Amino acid sequence: MPDVFPSDSVGLVTPETITIEEPIALDCGRVLPSYTLVYETYGTLNPTRSNAILICHALSGDHHAAGYHDTGETKPGWWESAIGPGKPIDTERFFVVCCNNLGGCKGSIGPTAVNPATGKPYGPDFPIVTVKDWVRSQAQLANRLGIDTWAAVIGGSLGGMQALQWAIDYPERIRHAVAIAAAPRLSAQNIAFNEVARQAILSDPDFHQGHYYEYGVIPRRGLMIARMLGHITYLSDEGMRAKFGRELREGKLNFNFESEFQVESYLRHQGYSFVDRFDANTYLLMTKALDYFDPAADYDNDLSMAFRRAKAHFLVISFTSDWRFSPARSQEIVRALLAARRQVSYARITAEHGHDAFLLPIPHYRDTFSAYLERVDREVNDHAG
Amino acid sequence: MPDVFPSDSVGLVTPETITIEEPIALDCGRVLPSYTLVYETYGTLNPTRSNAILICHALSGDHHAAGYHDTGETKPGWWESAIGPGKPIDTERFFVVCCNNLGGCKGSIGPTAVNPATGKPYGPDFPIVTVKDWVRSQAQLANRLGIDTWAAVIGGSLGGMQALQWAIDYPERIRHAVAIAAAPRLSAQNIAFNEVARQAILSDPDFHQGHYYEYGVIPRRGLMIARMLGHITYLSDEGMRAKFGRELREGKLNFNFESEFQVESYLRHQGYSFVDRFDANTYLLMTKALDYFDPAADYDNDLSMAFRRAKAHFLVISFTSDWRFSPARSQEIVRALLAARRQVSYARITAEHGHDAFLLPIPHYRDTFSAYLERVDREVNDHAG
Repeated sequence: MPDVFPSDSVGLVTPETITIEEPIALDCGRVLPSYTLVYETYGTLNPTRSNAILICHALSGDHHAAGYHDTGETKPGWWESAIGPGKPIDTERFFVVCCNNLGGCKGSIGPTAVNPATGKPYGPDFPIVTVKDWVRSQAQLANRLGIDTWAAVIGGSLGGMQALQWAIDYPERIRHAVAIAAAPRLSAQNIAFNEVARQAILSDPDFHQGHYYEYGVIPRRGLMIARMLGHITYLSDEGMRAKFGRELREGKLNFNFESEFQVESYLRHQGYSFVDRFDANTYLLMTKALDYFDPAADYDNDLSMAFRRAKAHFLVISFTSDWRFSPARSQEIVRALLAARRQVSYARITAEHGHDAFLLPIPHYRDTFSAYLERVDREVNDHAG
Repeated sequence: MPDVFPSDSVGLVTPETITIEEPIALDCGRVLPSYTLVYETYGTLNPTRSNAILICHALSGDHHAAGYHDTGETKPGWWESAIGPGKPIDTERFFVVCCNNLGGCKGSIGPTAVNPATGKPYGPDFPIVTVKDWVRSQAQLANRLGIDTWAAVIGGSLGGMQALQWAIDYPERIRHAVAIAAAPRLSAQNIAFNEVARQAILSDPDFHQGHYYEYGVIPRRGLMIARMLGHITYLSDEGMRAKFGRELREGKLNFNFESEFQVESYLRHQGYSFVDRFDANTYLLMTKALDYFDPAADYDNDLSMAFRRAKAHFLVISFTSDWRFSPARSQEIVRALLAARRQVSYARITAEHGHDAFLLPIPHYRDTFSAYLERVDREVNDHAG
């Protein structure tokens, strides 16, 4: 490993690809006869195969959670703050796995992949997938990797929802579930934001009913609007005030529609840069997976009934300024776990960074996260011993 | 008045139009040589001309604040809940005036009006107007109506900002300023939402740099997205939960991109119906007027210094679930008024309806509003006597 990378980074990583030649029946009723998943691993699987941790990604995330793909890369994986030697998810203790989910656009099967039935990209014909579908496919990946039981399944936001679903659907295969900045299901307001983002994409003339690949275009405007809107919900009012305030780019009002306030310029930049690295059909699918997530729905709308199946121990973390999935939403999870007599630790971290806080190296958050995972590690060693 | 209208309505009203043949110098540096304003009045001006109230409209509002334009109209003016016989703004006591602001699209000069210089609609060439410009034009309207001093200037949201600006810019001409669900200036998050709405419109291929009238199209998609987004900020999370929850239109998930949740259907309807009654260029201008509003900016960023000029008494009202302009923002106004040693009454109304609460007949709100305006009326009578 060249020393260009920080010593607390996993450094250079190479994604791996696996094709699972076994059909998967999806919640929507359709079946994928086989499917490819791209994933990364960090650290070493111990001889008893008991130190594996699954990381689940959020809406625009992927399998590249930590480290660098090449020595020239300046930006590490999306959860570099939490994964690496000495970090909360310590790669000197744990074997860490992260895959790009079904429907993704970074190498796993999804709208941009070629549909063997047509020889063209799936596009809008790719089925709408759910959190349960993802968990099912991740279980198959675990089988292939020889991992019977995860020491922990961990995720933030939509990733945290997958951790919860894992605990419900595979109670014997997960010892700890860590759900950070998550919610037990989306509120009407959450769905509303997703719907505006979807309409922006669906109504873009370059969307072509999802077949834009064939037209050599991408629904750039719609995806940009969707991403800009998403960013507002990832940040907090107070965080934006601290970061941008009402600062003007040129120190004066120009009375036109160019970006004048710093916050406008920031959002436009976020929008522009996103369209070149993310697929619009995947974005649509991910928002649907969020809307549909509702583990209580299978249990008479009683979340605690859903959790009664679980055997894992839980860590739930929320952030005070997160208004996308506020502490109150995490507390719904905690209350249901307590009602189900499950073991749960809950931390409400004071942070002004909004929903994005889960990606940031906030000391109190990092310490809480580390302390919990040290416990997970002790259990691994007890188990191994 | 036909008895088809409720007895507490002003009933049938007819808008009036005035062209002010006097140049107005705008904040942007441009000058309109003359300008047309459309307005409505309700009630009767008393002989001493001391009972006049100016109502200022918000982003998508207009001059039609109360009553009906014809006997077949089913929907009254936008503030029917507050204006009429026996209502807080009692038309048996007050002479009420409401005009469509400069840049509007309901009859006052704006992007849809014909530019005498070209014989075509102004479109994007209409100047960007500010709250101060509006107040200046409203003062000219007051002159033409023979109103030297308003008993009160009243508005909600962007309308409340105009009431505050009136108190600062024309201290001798306003006895009471009522600012409901307002803010002393927009936060970075507020500006961010406006910017996403603007980008949706500006990037719509049917926008044609604002010259869409000449192409026989309107930027329907962009304006729809802007309106859907606006609606999310007008409602509260809790209000949406109470109104829509996660109710499915057909009682089941369909795994497609049609609207499935009731909240999606509601938002799409709001978007669709808006595009046929509102002009996109006007929408852009209104969001800019919001972004630019910042009375403290002229006074070294000290809002209390701005208010030191004012002589009016103030009523400030906020709503607990309003997250667009939260109670904390109203309290900034109150604090600055107190620091400036102005007389201010403040009411924080418990309501789950979000920002839109200011348009609704909420008992505590209505009673507070009525009580304050009874005081205004007593002063009118003292003054008249």
